[in-house]
Amino acid sequence: MYKNGFHMELYEGIISRRSIRNYTGEKVDEEIITSIIKAGMYAPSARNRRPWHFVVIDDRSIMKKIMDVHPYSSMLAEASHAIVVCGDKELENGPGYYKLDCSAASQNMLLAAHSKGLGAVWLGVEPREERIKAVSNILGLPSHVAPVSIISIGIPAKYPSSLPERFDEKRIRRNKW
Amino acid sequence: MYKNGFHMELYEGIISRRSIRNYTGEKVDEEIITSIIKAGMYAPSARNRRPWHFVVIDDRSIMKKIMDVHPYSSMLAEASHAIVVCGDKELENGPGYYKLDCSAASQNMLLAAHSKGLGAVWLGVEPREERIKAVSNILGLPSHVAPVSIISIGIPAKYPSSLPERFDEKRIRRNKW
Repeated sequence: MYKNGFHMELYEGIISRRSIRNYTGEKVDEEIITSIIKAGMYAPSARNRRPWHFVVIDDRSIMKKIMDVHPYSSMLAEASHAIVVCGDKELENGPGYYKLDCSAASQNMLLAAHSKGLGAVWLGVEPREERIKAVSNILGLPSHVAPVSIISIGIPAKYPSSLPERFDEKRIRRNKW
Repeated sequence: MYKNGFHMELYEGIISRRSIRNYTGEKVDEEIITSIIKAGMYAPSARNRRPWHFVVIDDRSIMKKIMDVHPYSSMLAEASHAIVVCGDKELENGPGYYKLDCSAASQNMLLAAHSKGLGAVWLGVEPREERIKAVSNILGLPSHVAPVSIISIGIPAKYPSSLPERFDEKRIRRNKW
């Protein structure tokens, strides 16, 4: 379990990470949640603008509101925390950059959760306008801030039994299409 | 150096990764380049659509053409390889998703390069229309495929001497804005 000093090699961790949607319902330590957000803040961003904000959700009533507006968020019922990764249009390098920067941050967070033995999954908000509006309303985001993803985090109820093969040689080309 | 069996812990690797723009000019083994692309293919994607393609560039004349159209790509002169991460509009989950999926893949690739002791940096193509067009033309991409990023890879000429503090508590909020 995650408190017992997990140690995973970087490359192996990238390959073995999976989307985990089944949790025990137990709470994850706050310091671990903070370390996951810290990992997000160490993502690269265009011109190092770091145009991000993180809203940590552990209030069940807010969790419930998100479940009401997001069609694929039922795992939040057993999640310990959700972290909404938001982009700031006043901080980004130019229009549209925050979506990429926040995606890199989200991926770092999924890997950081994996490094702690936790389960996590990326719930898409961007690019769906209706989800962006609904989540913005629930959190009371200012107009220059928009949600990109929700990272659902919990202690895994079960680990996936197998690792799928995702390498596909046909997707690699050389010097031209 | 990268062949001598680097071993880096996952969380530590996320935090210690930096954008590396100075390379020795030496060639990186092809199998390492393939393993970096494999890491990209293990990123999560919306509905697991994996809407990506990877164009590996090692032809100096193609590298030069990219340097002519991308204003921040001078490090390619000493890079071993560049990998253009492209999104496929016919494979993505809905309009706009490939940009997020390819960003997650790009971040995995930067981390994978770091895991091998290599230096890498993300050159932004998306969301700048003029760069998207120019890179598409150079590579001869079909109209349903668009470049998102270029990952420049090489053997580091020097490692950054210090690790910046990027954690910023003020970017974290709780349950609401």
